[in-house]
Amino acid sequence: MTSRERASEDGLIARFFAPLAGEGALGLKDDAACLSPRPGHDLVLTTDALVESVHFLPEDSPASIARKALGVNVSDLAAKGADPAGFLLSLALPETWTEEWLADFVSGLGVASRDFSCPLLGGDTVKASGALTLSVTAVGEVPAGRMVRRTHARVGDVVCVSGTIGDAALGLKLRKTPSWAAALSSGERAHLADRYLHPQPRHRLARAVREHAHAAMDVSDGLAGDLAKMMRVSGVSASVEAAKVPFSAAVRKAIEADSSLFDLAVTGGDDYEILCTVPEKKLDSFRKEADSVGIMVSAIGRVVAGHETPVFRINGTERHYDAGSFSHF
Amino acid sequence: MTSRERASEDGLIARFFAPLAGEGALGLKDDAACLSPRPGHDLVLTTDALVESVHFLPEDSPASIARKALGVNVSDLAAKGADPAGFLLSLALPETWTEEWLADFVSGLGVASRDFSCPLLGGDTVKASGALTLSVTAVGEVPAGRMVRRTHARVGDVVCVSGTIGDAALGLKLRKTPSWAAALSSGERAHLADRYLHPQPRHRLARAVREHAHAAMDVSDGLAGDLAKMMRVSGVSASVEAAKVPFSAAVRKAIEADSSLFDLAVTGGDDYEILCTVPEKKLDSFRKEADSVGIMVSAIGRVVAGHETPVFRINGTERHYDAGSFSHF
Repeated sequence: MTSRERASEDGLIARFFAPLAGEGALGLKDDAACLSPRPGHDLVLTTDALVESVHFLPEDSPASIARKALGVNVSDLAAKGADPAGFLLSLALPETWTEEWLADFVSGLGVASRDFSCPLLGGDTVKASGALTLSVTAVGEVPAGRMVRRTHARVGDVVCVSGTIGDAALGLKLRKTPSWAAALSSGERAHLADRYLHPQPRHRLARAVREHAHAAMDVSDGLAGDLAKMMRVSGVSASVEAAKVPFSAAVRKAIEADSSLFDLAVTGGDDYEILCTVPEKKLDSFRKEADSVGIMVSAIGRVVAGHETPVFRINGTERHYDAGSFSHF
Repeated sequence: MTSRERASEDGLIARFFAPLAGEGALGLKDDAACLSPRPGHDLVLTTDALVESVHFLPEDSPASIARKALGVNVSDLAAKGADPAGFLLSLALPETWTEEWLADFVSGLGVASRDFSCPLLGGDTVKASGALTLSVTAVGEVPAGRMVRRTHARVGDVVCVSGTIGDAALGLKLRKTPSWAAALSSGERAHLADRYLHPQPRHRLARAVREHAHAAMDVSDGLAGDLAKMMRVSGVSASVEAAKVPFSAAVRKAIEADSSLFDLAVTGGDDYEILCTVPEKKLDSFRKEADSVGIMVSAIGRVVAGHETPVFRINGTERHYDAGSFSHF
């Protein structure tokens, strides 16, 4: 069957996508969505594309791929202090797509959309040239003028990060080499694999970030590299206490078994945690508000003057991660 | 050279894309754009993806591909009566990309961005799996509550279309079979080829559309099919006088030589004209305002009651185009 014989694009929209449509989507019966921020608010827009074998593995379930595509974009909104308002999806489907695949994809997308409070606003479905390729544009809302910038870190700020770091990078290593990490329990291995497959965007932290942070971004290309980027565009540097970088029990055990994995944990991609700089006097309040939405935040270092790559202090030694940071490109 | 050796994504952004950035793009130094509609305005959002060999030909110039990717999205905005505010670009580059290709692409994108008054707001660049794939999300602005819907055609409205129809479909036929259409002059052949390659979004017509039309959409999948869609979602039908469908001199000559080309002209894709329904009493004013921005609009028929596929009246016969309308999917 060709895709034309299976279903027209309009048929696909009505059957699969219309049930996910948010208010501004006009039932997906129009060519465009219509959206206004609430009075006194700005809209925040971000776009991230995902390509099979680059951002996810061919054997990943359609529901996991859908969740990741939306999750990585919602993560960007959260880091800007923005609450999700909706998303548009461009889906380039390979010739081999099946209705079963699409049904699972849309089902996963629907669950993620509800979990992240981010309804579908519109989209486009086309034939891929090669493997599955998705692009999501997410739209969020912040009180006017309050989008948290990447460029505004100030000397003296405390460098904070949400959740734990390195799980996804070690999870990907595990996916590629299942025999790796014999020291870990099956539960720990499952935790790492899941963190690679299912990013946990910190959208519930958006409000705390915009009320406390001078600067923020999400950690998608490795903690060390993303911190270096944020410091560079802010015209400052940073000093990080390696012992304070938050690791899960699984990552900690893996590093204990092989200390070189520390570098992978802080340079590997796909954490989708929030990295931000908070003035000292607001730190307690930031922690408290993060705690109230069930998200751990850790103070890992300080913003310092200078233009050097941030330094990681590890057992009395200093390490810099200049290049070699993870990139999806 | 691998792409990593050539340039980091941040390097690409700074060198190629930052010069195109609009005000809300924050110099493309952040993770997201920040945008507010002017007071009393809504934002309109639309997304369209383009895939090599599906939406453009592998030998098309990078500048033409860039112009088309932006143009087809601006065309959607215009049909909603929205003035362009900016766009986000997801670019999946095949392994074989070169800096020369990207420089030409960005140069064409910059010209199109200025021509359409639609600045770059943000984007993402990733490795393609297969051929070049682009996705653009365009954002426009309309006075609050004034987005022109696809679903609001009313019985008695005059069906209007901008510009000329069928040029791009015949242009594509010419690209695929250069020996075709011996009857046409080289100038006429060049006109058709150019209309396929370079859609002319009717953004200057946006204001006239929102002030006069009950319903509108852009014609991207063929006049007959798109009219059928608009009538269906409005719960009405239409009657079209084939003799009033606006054709360029080249298309008219081609149809005179081979009358079967009429069907191709009204069902082929890529016109990117605006199809709208206008109440009779506003028709003169609509024509006048269109004329003042240098865009021809033609009244081609009427909205009528019923649920049938629109009828095209041709020399006393009636033709319906049920299926077989062009689709990019």
